[in-house]
Amino acid sequence: MADEYLPALEALILNFKRLPGIGHKTAARMAFALLDFTHEEAHSFADAIITAKESIVPCEICGHISEGGKCDVCSSDKRDRSVICVVEDSRAVMALEKVREFKGLYHVLGGTISPMNGIGPDELNIKSLLARLDGVEEVIIATNPTIEGETTAMYVSKLLKPLGVKTTRLAYGVPVGGDLEYSDEVTLFRAIEGRRDI
Amino acid sequence: MADEYLPALEALILNFKRLPGIGHKTAARMAFALLDFTHEEAHSFADAIITAKESIVPCEICGHISEGGKCDVCSSDKRDRSVICVVEDSRAVMALEKVREFKGLYHVLGGTISPMNGIGPDELNIKSLLARLDGVEEVIIATNPTIEGETTAMYVSKLLKPLGVKTTRLAYGVPVGGDLEYSDEVTLFRAIEGRRDI
Repeated sequence: MADEYLPALEALILNFKRLPGIGHKTAARMAFALLDFTHEEAHSFADAIITAKESIVPCEICGHISEGGKCDVCSSDKRDRSVICVVEDSRAVMALEKVREFKGLYHVLGGTISPMNGIGPDELNIKSLLARLDGVEEVIIATNPTIEGETTAMYVSKLLKPLGVKTTRLAYGVPVGGDLEYSDEVTLFRAIEGRRDI
Repeated sequence: MADEYLPALEALILNFKRLPGIGHKTAARMAFALLDFTHEEAHSFADAIITAKESIVPCEICGHISEGGKCDVCSSDKRDRSVICVVEDSRAVMALEKVREFKGLYHVLGGTISPMNGIGPDELNIKSLLARLDGVEEVIIATNPTIEGETTAMYVSKLLKPLGVKTTRLAYGVPVGGDLEYSDEVTLFRAIEGRRDI
C-alpha cells in the first residue's frame, strides 16, 4: 500500500515518537528529514546516540550525569561540601549551574514520587542521600514546583528533620520579568506569603 | 566546568539540532530523554537511523522513497499512467495518497526553486519529468502554496506547455472547516477568483 510508510521509515518514526513531546506528525517530519541527511551525518547521529548512552553514567555519589566515577561537581575541590541541593534530574543541575550562585554539591533523585506512575520513594535515590549527610549542614530541596515535586520535597524533608540537618526549600514567587496578571493564584498566594522587607 | 555539557551529550544535542524545528533547548531535552532509554532502546534507535538511511532510496522513476528500484506507486499495476502529479517531496505523496482520490503516478522534484538557498532548476528532478511524458495526458502540479512552490509550478508549467501536455494546478481556496475571518486576503482572493457554480 502506497499510503503506508515503508517499514524502515515506520521503525524510525516509532523511535522518534519515544522522545518527549513528539507526536506522530513531528516524528514523521524528523524521519523524512533524516532521509535527507548525508551518509556521514546519519552515521554521526547513530554513533552519538550509542556513545552518549554507553559513556554517560550516573555519578556514583550524587547521581548527576558523568563519564564514569564522580561527576564534575563531586570531583571539584572548589565546592562547598556542607551544602547539598536535592533536584529531580540532571537538567535541574545544569539549570542551577548556569546561575553560578550555588557552590555546594547536588543530589539527583532521578524523578519524583508519583503513585500514578508507580514511582514510590524506593525508586528514587533517597537512601543514598541519607548516607552522605556526614558533615552536611544544609540540604536545599529544589524539586520542581509541581504537585509531584512538592510531595517529594515534603517526603525528603520529613526524613531529614530528625537527623538534625537544616532543610530548606527554594523560594516560591512571581518569576522575574513576569506579569502579575498572568500569574496563577497559587503562585501569587505563595508570593504574598513569602514577602520580604525591602 | 560543570555548567557545560559532557562532550558525548553535547555531540548528541548537536545531532538533534540538525532536525527541522529543533532548537537548543528541545535538543537538550531529547538528549537527556535518550539517556533514560534502556540499552536496547538506544541501540534500536541508532539501528533504525542507519537502516532507514541505507535501505531507503529514491524511486528510479519518480523520486519517491522506495526500498530500491521502483516505489510502490510506480510498480503498482492499478495506477493510471496517463496522469502525473508533480510534488515537492515524498511527504506530499504520502499526504495525497491518504486521500485515496488520485490514481495516477507521481513525480517528486526534491524541493523547490529557491535562489536564496542556491537551488536552481538543475538541482531538482525536472529533466527526469520531461523524459517520462510519453503517453502522459495530464500533469497536475501540486507544489506547496508558497512563493517557492508557486515559482516552481510556473517554471515547470512553462516547460510542459510547448510539449502539448495538459498542465493543471491544485485548486486554491478556503480550507474546509476553516473560518473566513481567519483566511488571509490572498487565499480569499483566490477563493473568489476560483468560485464554482453550485
